Amino acid sequence: MKIDLNSDLGESFGPWSMGDDAAMLDVVTSANIACGGHASDPETMFTTLRTAAAKGVVIGAHPGYADREGFGRRVIPMAPAELGRMVAAQVGALVGVAALAGARVRYVKPHGALSNHAADDRAAADAIVAAVRALPGDLAFLAISGTELELAARAAGIPVFAEIFADRGYLPNGRLVPRSQPGAMIHDPAEAAERLLRFLDTGRMAVVGGDPIPLQAASICVHGDSPGAVAMAREVRARLSAAGVSLASFL
Amino acid sequence: MKIDLNSDLGESFGPWSMGDDAAMLDVVTSANIACGGHASDPETMFTTLRTAAAKGVVIGAHPGYADREGFGRRVIPMAPAELGRMVAAQVGALVGVAALAGARVRYVKPHGALSNHAADDRAAADAIVAAVRALPGDLAFLAISGTELELAARAAGIPVFAEIFADRGYLPNGRLVPRSQPGAMIHDPAEAAERLLRFLDTGRMAVVGGDPIPLQAASICVHGDSPGAVAMAREVRARLSAAGVSLASFL
Amino acid sequence: MKIDLNSDLGESFGPWSMGDDAAMLDVVTSANIACGGHASDPETMFTTLRTAAAKGVVIGAHPGYADREGFGRRVIPMAPAELGRMVAAQVGALVGVAALAGARVRYVKPHGALSNHAADDRAAADAIVAAVRALPGDLAFLAISGTELELAARAAGIPVFAEIFADRGYLPNGRLVPRSQPGAMIHDPAEAAERLLRFLDTGRMAVVGGDPIPLQAASICVHGDSPGAVAMAREVRARLSAAGVSLASFL
Amino acid sequence: MKIDLNSDLGESFGPWSMGDDAAMLDVVTSANIACGGHASDPETMFTTLRTAAAKGVVIGAHPGYADREGFGRRVIPMAPAELGRMVAAQVGALVGVAALAGARVRYVKPHGALSNHAADDRAAADAIVAAVRALPGDLAFLAISGTELELAARAAGIPVFAEIFADRGYLPNGRLVPRSQPGAMIHDPAEAAERLLRFLDTGRMAVVGGDPIPLQAASICVHGDSPGAVAMAREVRARLSAAGVSLASFL
Repeated sequence: MKIDLNSDLGESFGPWSMGDDAAMLDVVTSANIACGGHASDPETMFTTLRTAAAKGVVIGAHPGYADREGFGRRVIPMAPAELGRMVAAQVGALVGVAALAGARVRYVKPHGALSNHAADDRAAADAIVAAVRALPGDLAFLAISGTELELAARAAGIPVFAEIFADRGYLPNGRLVPRSQPGAMIHDPAEAAERLLRFLDTGRMAVVGGDPIPLQAASICVHGDSPGAVAMAREVRARLSAAGVSLASFL
Repeated sequence: MKIDLNSDLGESFGPWSMGDDAAMLDVVTSANIACGGHASDPETMFTTLRTAAAKGVVIGAHPGYADREGFGRRVIPMAPAELGRMVAAQVGALVGVAALAGARVRYVKPHGALSNHAADDRAAADAIVAAVRALPGDLAFLAISGTELELAARAAGIPVFAEIFADRGYLPNGRLVPRSQPGAMIHDPAEAAERLLRFLDTGRMAVVGGDPIPLQAASICVHGDSPGAVAMAREVRARLSAAGVSLASFL
Repeated sequence: MKIDLNSDLGESFGPWSMGDDAAMLDVVTSANIACGGHASDPETMFTTLRTAAAKGVVIGAHPGYADREGFGRRVIPMAPAELGRMVAAQVGALVGVAALAGARVRYVKPHGALSNHAADDRAAADAIVAAVRALPGDLAFLAISGTELELAARAAGIPVFAEIFADRGYLPNGRLVPRSQPGAMIHDPAEAAERLLRFLDTGRMAVVGGDPIPLQAASICVHGDSPGAVAMAREVRARLSAAGVSLASFL
Repeated sequence: MKIDLNSDLGESFGPWSMGDDAAMLDVVTSANIACGGHASDPETMFTTLRTAAAKGVVIGAHPGYADREGFGRRVIPMAPAELGRMVAAQVGALVGVAALAGARVRYVKPHGALSNHAADDRAAADAIVAAVRALPGDLAFLAISGTELELAARAAGIPVFAEIFADRGYLPNGRLVPRSQPGAMIHDPAEAAERLLRFLDTGRMAVVGGDPIPLQAASICVHGDSPGAVAMAREVRARLSAAGVSLASFL
């Protein structure tokens, strides 16, 4: 059995740091690196890219709404074509810095409100997919299974890999439990790891208020910016490894 | 006889437009397109790139200090390595949008204070050259002859083409007359064109306070953002054409 | 008969200018000056404030979403309390620069998407009103009649003055004709002036698809940033003056 | 004996936090609060202002170059008049949010590179002083003794109070030891407190490479953003209190 561990990294900005990227890059097998839109700057990109490359971590671009103050968590009303151009500029910027860092960008995973919008809106998803397909480098997508983004990528013939979340509860319809409801977050690393192991064993994920449901997953997302993030990621990795699961990139 | 006409374009931002890019793209043979640092945004990049490609104008990246309020005309103190990463991100962004626009970026010409700094500071020039060399696409440089940037590009084995200015006066040492001094600007299109024709004929450029000096030039820069810019550019082009000079990109 | 003429001014940014503020300040009696959110910067604020004060034009603050790329025309999702703090910071900034310019800010008129949001959402309107009421200087509001903003200001005991638009068509319910529909814009200055004179004479405004409706107005908004804006504003002013209407601020 | 303890606070931005402001506001008697230039945003300003007011901490504005990426530590070339307008806008913004927070801004202390520039350049200092003097509220200055800013404020008749640094070494000429040299930083809280107590006792400050020198001080600056900052500040406060020094604002 084999699975990938991914995390959103490179989300510092100027004098402000976020998360412990160096520690997380010892745990994950894929790094979604911010592109200067919702977070990051050329220095942060460079450092994160170089460290990821040095540690053999596979690199993805993590574009988001160009809204640092809102950290890409607010939907900025934009036409689909505008989203495509924004994503092209952001992924291009990361690819440019990666060239200087001796690293290579392999896939794209949208961030925050952009990810949510592309999950529900096919025109937005299509525009993002068109932008990524136009870029050189045969970029893949990392996306949540069942979203419009996954469908759009598949329709365009772009490889797309599904992710699940280590520390988020699921509903019977396969969606995440909203953060405002009980069961939204799993804070105990042991519990998170056990749940993942059962999923890997059975192909079915525990949900809040129902029987386990079948789910696709090529990667497990561990968050990098919350307190205890590194501890959670390490515990998940250790328990999966101990259970014989091989941790490796989906690419 | 053959020479290129270049202009700084794509320098609008959000709701604010600068210059008449559509008109200038009918006149020039090379377009230096801003990359979102001192000016531009993904929409402006896309529109400018697509129009340039449609008109057969060769495209260059025009990176500058990431200082929109100062339009890249203020030196922001940065280490050489930081300059390299900034240029990599900006040129990468333009390359990314160009891929979506079906256009191709062929060369790099730094803007404003970044250009001045790279003209005088070899470490800065080397860092910018290293960034551009790392990018894919075999990018060339457009630079002023005799600058550290030209020397750094040459030392790195990157093709570099020299530019002269249609509407700026020269000093006997080959530098531009500072804008605060008499003779800095040539406002009369006919005078500008005559001066260029004499230069193309003799290889020597008229200067303020001295005899004409030998100068290198593969391209003539016409400004795009001042009143009368389009008229000046059209007149220069018409007179050069009438004199049998072929206007074509250096690439 | 007496009415005010207002326009949105000071909307340049860095190297980019918008509209002909100097010309408009010879026409209007009130100037809504951008505060560095959707447009402007300290230099633009200072120049506009000083010119307005020198010409005896009454000054209002024109805060908007802090989204220069979208020019404040996109709704940025924010909690009402966040809107209040944003407005407090922007109006405070203009008040600060006004102190240096020897000018005085007398009222507030929200811009673009912020204005639309505050027209429809009472919680947003209340938060903006609370911010303005907390500021020193006994600031009034300039708002569209019938909006939540007008009601919120009135409920808070803040003077609020109603505006109508010189160049926008009205619907029978008193709302503006959407820009996508016929009759949204009045391009002919003479027609615009005639319509305003009939309104001032009868208290009733012509509408698209119905009989004239009663409307409140202490001020007429003339746009400053479109082609022909100055000509429209001058014509309106000249025709109103010729008809014996006195043009003067509502404050 | 009485002295003030000040710290630079409110330097978070959007999703990024800096320092432990709540803890520092239990230690200091004056808070220099960032104004949205080098750091902060309306939410950060509001929270910091309200907390400071609730704890009875005296509030100062802490304007800096509008360069978040460089955290106001890079000199942005600007004319003195431009500096004055920038400071007016920033201090005005903080004053505006303070009105909403029920707090009052009492003094101004420039940040980082702006502070260094105003220490050496009289024209810059004069422009900043003119901006602050134009603002309502009878604002004072907190400045390093012997700087052009202190002289400019004094010449303008504005109260100015001198600060010394708890954790920075001094040279025989009264300047700080550059961060690149030995003795620049004092890391041991006990050592820092002992040095301050000797200074308060004798009026003379220990220096690197010489005899103690006489120095003016109405306030001691403790840094808020380095690791161990809160521990250092608490230790300094505790030792001064234990020695009978009264800690209170200079205003």
